[in-house]
Amino acid sequence: MIIDQLVEAIKVKRNPTVVGLDTTYEFLPPTIQRLCNSPADIAVQITDYNRRLIDGLKDIVPAVKVQSAYYEMYGWDGMRAFAETLDYAKACGLITIADVKRNDIGATAKAYAQAYLSGFTVNFNDFRINDDNFKNGVYDPNKGEYVFRPQLVRYFNCDFMTVNGYLGSDGVMPFVDACRENDKGIFILVKTSNPSSDDFQDLNLRGNTGTVYRRMAKFVHEWGSDLKGTSGFSPIGAVVGATRPEQGAELRHAFPSMFFLIPGFGAQGARASDVRGFFRDGEGGIVNNSRGIISAWQKKYYQGMTAVNAAIAAATDMRNDLRIALDL
Amino acid sequence: MIIDQLVEAIKVKRNPTVVGLDTTYEFLPPTIQRLCNSPADIAVQITDYNRRLIDGLKDIVPAVKVQSAYYEMYGWDGMRAFAETLDYAKACGLITIADVKRNDIGATAKAYAQAYLSGFTVNFNDFRINDDNFKNGVYDPNKGEYVFRPQLVRYFNCDFMTVNGYLGSDGVMPFVDACRENDKGIFILVKTSNPSSDDFQDLNLRGNTGTVYRRMAKFVHEWGSDLKGTSGFSPIGAVVGATRPEQGAELRHAFPSMFFLIPGFGAQGARASDVRGFFRDGEGGIVNNSRGIISAWQKKYYQGMTAVNAAIAAATDMRNDLRIALDL
Repeated sequence: MIIDQLVEAIKVKRNPTVVGLDTTYEFLPPTIQRLCNSPADIAVQITDYNRRLIDGLKDIVPAVKVQSAYYEMYGWDGMRAFAETLDYAKACGLITIADVKRNDIGATAKAYAQAYLSGFTVNFNDFRINDDNFKNGVYDPNKGEYVFRPQLVRYFNCDFMTVNGYLGSDGVMPFVDACRENDKGIFILVKTSNPSSDDFQDLNLRGNTGTVYRRMAKFVHEWGSDLKGTSGFSPIGAVVGATRPEQGAELRHAFPSMFFLIPGFGAQGARASDVRGFFRDGEGGIVNNSRGIISAWQKKYYQGMTAVNAAIAAATDMRNDLRIALDL
Repeated sequence: MIIDQLVEAIKVKRNPTVVGLDTTYEFLPPTIQRLCNSPADIAVQITDYNRRLIDGLKDIVPAVKVQSAYYEMYGWDGMRAFAETLDYAKACGLITIADVKRNDIGATAKAYAQAYLSGFTVNFNDFRINDDNFKNGVYDPNKGEYVFRPQLVRYFNCDFMTVNGYLGSDGVMPFVDACRENDKGIFILVKTSNPSSDDFQDLNLRGNTGTVYRRMAKFVHEWGSDLKGTSGFSPIGAVVGATRPEQGAELRHAFPSMFFLIPGFGAQGARASDVRGFFRDGEGGIVNNSRGIISAWQKKYYQGMTAVNAAIAAATDMRNDLRIALDL
């Protein structure tokens, strides 16, 4: 299962880090910015630069996370860069996480699952058998008729995607079903890293039944309970912010088989020592760092390095910090 | 303000309906399906078919809602269809709602707001003044140097977008700020139309302080309180499902200036009489119908009509039902 591959890749690289490719024009080094003469150029250059980053980082980190907001900014050109970045990372043997936080109900949630987890085929010729105007079939001389030629639609193919569960079970199950059928995984927002995550997630429920985020975690556990890998973890995981060490430890203790995607490291203030409680014998989570790695070249500390080398240095530093903190 | 334009358009057309353009291959009439020879073709034909629907519906309905999931399914080709559909609807004088349910924190939420509400300019030449390699500037002979040529990035331009507020205030404020600065609006998920919306939204809070959805509505009210149009409504509105008439009436009573986007009509089971309590003197909401209109041609009731004419007939029937139910 994909969750076992992730756990294994973390073990092999001794590094529970996922690099967030939040690549925008501002983070492109000047030599690459100079190649851009239009917004459409930017999207092409972001793809190319992401490939260089992936080439540089693929032996250090087990996974990349691609944040769709920074690609949607650039319209459909950006979405193409988003898809091509996911594809290249996968081709390089990395685990890919599409950070899209999608959410909807029923048929619409299924459409999102198709967009990111499963793809789908179009059966162009449902109505075209032996139709003179039929253009898509292949003529089968044995049958004396045109035959079925379903085509896979090109989509945003990732190993894991992030999902917002506010709409409840019937909004999440289409994603869970897609994970089951296509060996994929999701991370559902439980306790996020931002200061205002308390507004709703920390509300206490009537009858001392805990908080909203704890209830969300309980649902995540149930949604994923029949999908457990040989690693002991479920591909139906949770997003828990590194800035919330207490809640991380609470959830680790309550849900031993839950895998965590842990944002908030670096730019948002969390450090390696903050995430100790999220892990169990060095397993069970992956820590995201985006700007701290991809824009390391803009920092004094990595001055004089090329942008890609600065990213490699920053990722190596983070890895080493995590190895010490987690005793890997 | 855009919210006043929406209120006015509803009044002029005596019709609080928004048509959901959830157009997929399955909903294209066979004559158009026949034109598709590849998945990329489908996206092009969806755009074209949406234009025909818009042409047919623009004098009946005040607004269209475009659900991104059904476009993301078709990859970046689909996202282009999504953008072009929004643009055409706007060019035809309709109010546009991008149903994207986006959500994230800080800088990432801002990127989403740029993608859908504000756009942004790239200042290509920050570092290029008098740079020989500078390709983007315009040489100003008076100044003897290249001058600034910021370019607006092409984005998914809508009047309103939907937002999921689970991440709390700092995840929503970038959208609210973009509304204020660009005269746009958002609808935040409060009480959704699906059966499992109870899972989290209906949880009761400690100390008899109401439900999660009621708390969300309170935040929506506060986020939008300093942004009120001459109509008395705020462009920071709420999504409340037509399948939840009790909650709709409760929220209408509690928050008189809150405008509702009301999904769940038709295919999900709600009828015109169910939404009465969501309105106040015939104002304060807009009811969405997607499949009930765009796939009307597949129903026995509208048999024999072209697909566009069936959509017009279904939209007219819905309008007439709402006029009676709401005494418009």
